[in-house]
Amino acid sequence: MKLNILKDVFNEAIQHVSKAISSRTTIPILTGIKIDVEPTGITLTASDTEISIQSFIPIEIDGTEIVQVMTPGSVVLPAKFFIEMTRKLPSSDVTLEVKENFITWIRSGSAEIQIVGLDPEEYPLLPQLEENNVMTISSDLLKSMIRQTTFAVSTSETSPILTGVLWNFQQERLKMIACDRLRMASREAQIAIGDAVDLQNIVIAGKSLNELSKLLPDHNMGIEIVVANNQVLFKMDRISFYTRILDGAYPDTSKLIPQSFQTELTVDTRKLADSIDRAYLLSREEKTNIVKMTLKEDQTVEISSSSSELGKVTENIEAHQLSGDLLSISFNSKYMLDALKIIDSEHIQICFRGSMQPIIIKPGDHGNMLHLIMPYRTTNG
Amino acid sequence: MKLNILKDVFNEAIQHVSKAISSRTTIPILTGIKIDVEPTGITLTASDTEISIQSFIPIEIDGTEIVQVMTPGSVVLPAKFFIEMTRKLPSSDVTLEVKENFITWIRSGSAEIQIVGLDPEEYPLLPQLEENNVMTISSDLLKSMIRQTTFAVSTSETSPILTGVLWNFQQERLKMIACDRLRMASREAQIAIGDAVDLQNIVIAGKSLNELSKLLPDHNMGIEIVVANNQVLFKMDRISFYTRILDGAYPDTSKLIPQSFQTELTVDTRKLADSIDRAYLLSREEKTNIVKMTLKEDQTVEISSSSSELGKVTENIEAHQLSGDLLSISFNSKYMLDALKIIDSEHIQICFRGSMQPIIIKPGDHGNMLHLIMPYRTTNG
Repeated sequence: MKLNILKDVFNEAIQHVSKAISSRTTIPILTGIKIDVEPTGITLTASDTEISIQSFIPIEIDGTEIVQVMTPGSVVLPAKFFIEMTRKLPSSDVTLEVKENFITWIRSGSAEIQIVGLDPEEYPLLPQLEENNVMTISSDLLKSMIRQTTFAVSTSETSPILTGVLWNFQQERLKMIACDRLRMASREAQIAIGDAVDLQNIVIAGKSLNELSKLLPDHNMGIEIVVANNQVLFKMDRISFYTRILDGAYPDTSKLIPQSFQTELTVDTRKLADSIDRAYLLSREEKTNIVKMTLKEDQTVEISSSSSELGKVTENIEAHQLSGDLLSISFNSKYMLDALKIIDSEHIQICFRGSMQPIIIKPGDHGNMLHLIMPYRTTNG
Repeated sequence: MKLNILKDVFNEAIQHVSKAISSRTTIPILTGIKIDVEPTGITLTASDTEISIQSFIPIEIDGTEIVQVMTPGSVVLPAKFFIEMTRKLPSSDVTLEVKENFITWIRSGSAEIQIVGLDPEEYPLLPQLEENNVMTISSDLLKSMIRQTTFAVSTSETSPILTGVLWNFQQERLKMIACDRLRMASREAQIAIGDAVDLQNIVIAGKSLNELSKLLPDHNMGIEIVVANNQVLFKMDRISFYTRILDGAYPDTSKLIPQSFQTELTVDTRKLADSIDRAYLLSREEKTNIVKMTLKEDQTVEISSSSSELGKVTENIEAHQLSGDLLSISFNSKYMLDALKIIDSEHIQICFRGSMQPIIIKPGDHGNMLHLIMPYRTTNG
């Protein structure tokens, strides 16, 4: 294997795949990046078994020669050292040459580096997905949907299925749901799609989706999603992102949502968030995050928290609308802030069914999002 | 105590003193910020016993009213909660009022916060320094001198004196020296000063100087330095920064510097730094940081490092000047990079007295700086 390549393009592709390198892997070959050189270009591959990323560098981009392939071949190079070294090479050109025992010579300007490479035959093969189950989604929408759900996945490995986000595609609507036992975030969107695509009850790890999100381009473009067996493949430009589908049945979250409410409140999103943020500062010191919301007859909402050691925070904000029974309810303010932070609507609607039942939060402008937060069952309520 | 204050000015002053708050203090009162309100303005004080910072807010700045003092008085407020809360207050005005038991009411817009304050009488008094031993230094120069020395202080508490920087003021020259047992950095500068100032063999903790540096203004101005007993006070604008003088005798570092050399090398600072940086990447993986420099007959310098597991890095750079005996010498590349990073000269001069003697590095343009690095005594030479 021998080639010449432009350093910047090489570095960019290496950066992309590097997100799949885990420092905690127990499989030695996966500490490396696989380089496959063919007459048409170079493919880089990295994987931590949960996700795998491939990046393709064609020999030419927009008429500019990027790669000169002298001899095709493959090698696996130790990721950490290879990534940092390539970034710091002195010249804009890099030559890579694999000699015996996979010793790889890297030359750039005055620098000459020999890296002990690994046998590419030992590198696991990526799944071959049959592309008959493909849908396309805009990258901007995908990025939003990931941001608006993954924060609510469970971080506890005791129910692995809850560390994932549930995807459901039905009647041209894609719905994503994340929940742990104390909160839920759901987001849906209309997606125009011709073919019948079977994308139902697929659960993808929140962590993997966050990694995918970092790779999504800044400019909006179509992302192809291929589903097959236990893998999902996201295809963007020259990057392929593979992730495992989590095993197990996702709980039916629709049962959690009350069917009717006793109280409905509409309030300014930003004002409520700022006010809860101040109360949170105190509740965090108490390590409880408990903040109390009290709906009052004068159409105001009191946000408060207290700590025997530090003091008390109280604040009143005006409701835009407040109907139904007045109540006092305590909740985890961190969860509420997480939800308010990603709601893209000036007003929100909060629905209550008493102080012991789930709180439902929806954007004022549209019905594409729903958040649920379980209240704290406090007795000093 | 009762007052009104502009939030932004208040926050800025709080930020300044907050740098003296340590989360590891064992003295409860020092987890707080002391607020002293007098008819002329407000003084904020924070301390971790090593350093103390005071910030004064006058009732008026450039004709704008900043503070309205209703009732003078004092209180100590728990720093962490108070700092974060004040930053997040909703209105541009803040009212502070201390009621019984030091309960302090903070009001801003719709927010009302009660903080359990502490008795200001319990707060330790800052030292009263007699200001008959004062010198003035420009803040830009002070910032440079701190940056160019503190990186070389020892981080080990086994010789506390070496965690400090030695200051010496003699014949209108200020000299600062930092060293551990393996390297030394020294920096001196001419300072025009009228009075005879006694500033000799004063050692100030590197950590304290770094904190001081963060408080130095962006625009150049004169900083007054007051030395008395076991304290040094730095006075800038409305901030006073107190730090303890370290106890003990600083070793005589002049003995470390060889008086004559066998080899002298002049080389491009940036090129040498980049090249050592690449070799460092490999040596770091070996956890040794050992890089070898070989001076060659063809007036080039070979920089190399190797690792049995990962590979080898080799690079040749041209010497501008190379005279004396050729040699091979191994050193801690991290130390060399630290020194090269802060040398503000296009070329550097490196002097050797054989491969087992200290390496001396000086800027090519001026004699105000000297770095010393001990070589590794390797046998594979």
